[in-house]
Amino acid sequence: MPGTNTDRAARIVARCREIAEYTEIPGEITRLFLTPPMHEVHALLRDWMEAAGMTVRIDAIGNLRGFWPGLVPGSPRLLIGSHLDTVPNAGAFDGVLGVVLAVAIIEELRGDLLPFAIEVIGFSEEEGVRFSKPFLGSLALVGKLDTETLARTDRHGISLRQAIDDYGLDPTPLPAATLAGEAFAYLEIHIEQGPLLESEETSLGVVEALVGQTRMELIFTGQANHAGTTPMHLRHDAIAAAAEWITAVERYASSHDGLVATVGKLEAAPGAGNVIAGQVIASLDVRHADDKIREASVLAILKRADKAAKGRGVHVSCNRQLEQPAVPLDLHLTALLSKAATEAGFPARSMTSGAGHDAMILAPAVPSAMLFLRSPGGLSHHPKETVLPQDVEAALATAMEFLAQLRDHRTNPKEIHA
Amino acid sequence: MPGTNTDRAARIVARCREIAEYTEIPGEITRLFLTPPMHEVHALLRDWMEAAGMTVRIDAIGNLRGFWPGLVPGSPRLLIGSHLDTVPNAGAFDGVLGVVLAVAIIEELRGDLLPFAIEVIGFSEEEGVRFSKPFLGSLALVGKLDTETLARTDRHGISLRQAIDDYGLDPTPLPAATLAGEAFAYLEIHIEQGPLLESEETSLGVVEALVGQTRMELIFTGQANHAGTTPMHLRHDAIAAAAEWITAVERYASSHDGLVATVGKLEAAPGAGNVIAGQVIASLDVRHADDKIREASVLAILKRADKAAKGRGVHVSCNRQLEQPAVPLDLHLTALLSKAATEAGFPARSMTSGAGHDAMILAPAVPSAMLFLRSPGGLSHHPKETVLPQDVEAALATAMEFLAQLRDHRTNPKEIHA
Repeated sequence: MPGTNTDRAARIVARCREIAEYTEIPGEITRLFLTPPMHEVHALLRDWMEAAGMTVRIDAIGNLRGFWPGLVPGSPRLLIGSHLDTVPNAGAFDGVLGVVLAVAIIEELRGDLLPFAIEVIGFSEEEGVRFSKPFLGSLALVGKLDTETLARTDRHGISLRQAIDDYGLDPTPLPAATLAGEAFAYLEIHIEQGPLLESEETSLGVVEALVGQTRMELIFTGQANHAGTTPMHLRHDAIAAAAEWITAVERYASSHDGLVATVGKLEAAPGAGNVIAGQVIASLDVRHADDKIREASVLAILKRADKAAKGRGVHVSCNRQLEQPAVPLDLHLTALLSKAATEAGFPARSMTSGAGHDAMILAPAVPSAMLFLRSPGGLSHHPKETVLPQDVEAALATAMEFLAQLRDHRTNPKEIHA
Repeated sequence: MPGTNTDRAARIVARCREIAEYTEIPGEITRLFLTPPMHEVHALLRDWMEAAGMTVRIDAIGNLRGFWPGLVPGSPRLLIGSHLDTVPNAGAFDGVLGVVLAVAIIEELRGDLLPFAIEVIGFSEEEGVRFSKPFLGSLALVGKLDTETLARTDRHGISLRQAIDDYGLDPTPLPAATLAGEAFAYLEIHIEQGPLLESEETSLGVVEALVGQTRMELIFTGQANHAGTTPMHLRHDAIAAAAEWITAVERYASSHDGLVATVGKLEAAPGAGNVIAGQVIASLDVRHADDKIREASVLAILKRADKAAKGRGVHVSCNRQLEQPAVPLDLHLTALLSKAATEAGFPARSMTSGAGHDAMILAPAVPSAMLFLRSPGGLSHHPKETVLPQDVEAALATAMEFLAQLRDHRTNPKEIHA
């Protein structure tokens, strides 16, 4: 298979930027699920896919699916994909890069047929913006899109079912969107959307698991009072209680490997400079690849909230808003991907993904692996989101090596365990 | 002079509640500077004052002034007063109680003439709500109301000058509102508006000084980032920095006698549970009776902000919004008031006032003293604000004893130093 080549990386970046021009809002990149500019993105990718020799269709949920056959009809199928929708005012690479790279992989095959077929999937929805529910494209693929979800409406009152119809698709054969039995593996290539690879001057990361997540809201209730006339020892200051707790949250997470815990939302009432706060509402977001560690951490963190509150005669209560288990990726495929990166000359860091991805939905249904590219500045969901061409090249070379390993493995299945 | 009597306390409380019925908003107590219900309050107080034998006028800024003559014409004059305006949705006692008590003092004299005259003043404006500037009544009294202030407008675009005119007063003789040279002392009786006296089961407090105050805004600027993909050691979390600082502010103030420091306003951006905060805007309010201690405390507190920020690669900046020196009250009058409280059987706690009062404006112009009454629950600026009849009785008895001491002192001036 072909080796490195800077031109091809530049072309991939240029294609992502070309796709970025199709937006609902001129001057920014905003392309929600099944909105008009998605037609143009589909047309563009269809052209590139067909030029590479692929057969293209759009399934009932709007996933763009390009097929590259295997050596024999009915060959097992490798899925490679990511998503084509964006958050509002997004960057050009989140999701899109993985689809464009997948097309480039087929182009790099230069007509070679492998002992397996490849299906490139541009998922129609991952970010969850339009219908306040993420992963619609991948959920449909694994047959987990329920009728309740089809009845959801966007902020214009349009139902998901109607949106599919408006786009020119027919939602009735949604079951036909589901994964065929012949799929044996899923590979997703995505930007890291975090600063870890950059901080370690590494191009690539191999994802071992997508972390589990707990989201809660804590309410500290003290007593609003006059900032001038209330001595320190007679206060029930909700902000002071929350502050001690937030410091403890940070300290706890920093001293536990692989744990992140964040208080990102903080609202104090009444919120005047000369009034002691009577109430603080604070968010808590805790993530770890090991569900038991996450659950134990949440308990420890809540204990610290109790302690910080009690010391000030403040009451604290909490609502659990989300409890999402970790999703481990396939051990064998992940090992194969790491080996491929090393052999391609770009040893990758093993890491977890702190964000959700389509691979999280695919993994329970089909063995899945995920490759991260360094995010310069750790920036994502931001117009300045970018990738380095050298990292795109590294990802492409690794993917080609992964295909080679997979081909060899399918000839001699034991090699993967080496 | 008359001794204790529960009926008179009940009557004072009832009068405050009667005044509270005159409000701009039915169902709550809201009576801003020179609004229509103030006419009715003036009429009510004028009746009570005149029934007690006083001569009543309303000066050019709308202060209600009742005169009780001394033994001889041109006697030196004791001022006793507080304010008649309220904050929105106020209680019935903040300000008003001091004026009603002053009228009761004259009633208790039962026609006795003293070696000094007494002027009871119901200040027209202290809370600063209507024109976003407090103390308009007392500032006019000491000749510090400038023409710039007269041009201020309320939220309906009505200027202060116009408001005076609309009320039926003439702003031209404003200089005539100023304090006559014969005033030798000012006494203000006011609810504490804080929890200290209640926490010590004490009826009365004698104020030694009104604290100085520094108000600032601190801006912590970190880096907004993904809560899932940004490891703890690569964060620049503005909320975590602010939280460490807030804990330090509380600790610092708690370990320094008489110091209060408050972070009451706290706004985090972008303010989403799954995004590390990039910016926090926090208020700081520091008060102490000793300006040097306050200034040193502000410096120490800002150092702690720097430390909390630097440790996280966060930047912190600050704007100073208010720098108000402490106002000590008159040593001799204050000693006399303490003695009077003790002799009346209600030993008072010496304390500072954390809030501003008309006495703060009067004190530089005329020797001033201030008596606090316990605030049940520490509540003020709240419909549930109240006073205990026994404390009203204690305040009245103390005031009568204060007058007796003052009379004796004016006969033998050295006694005050005893």
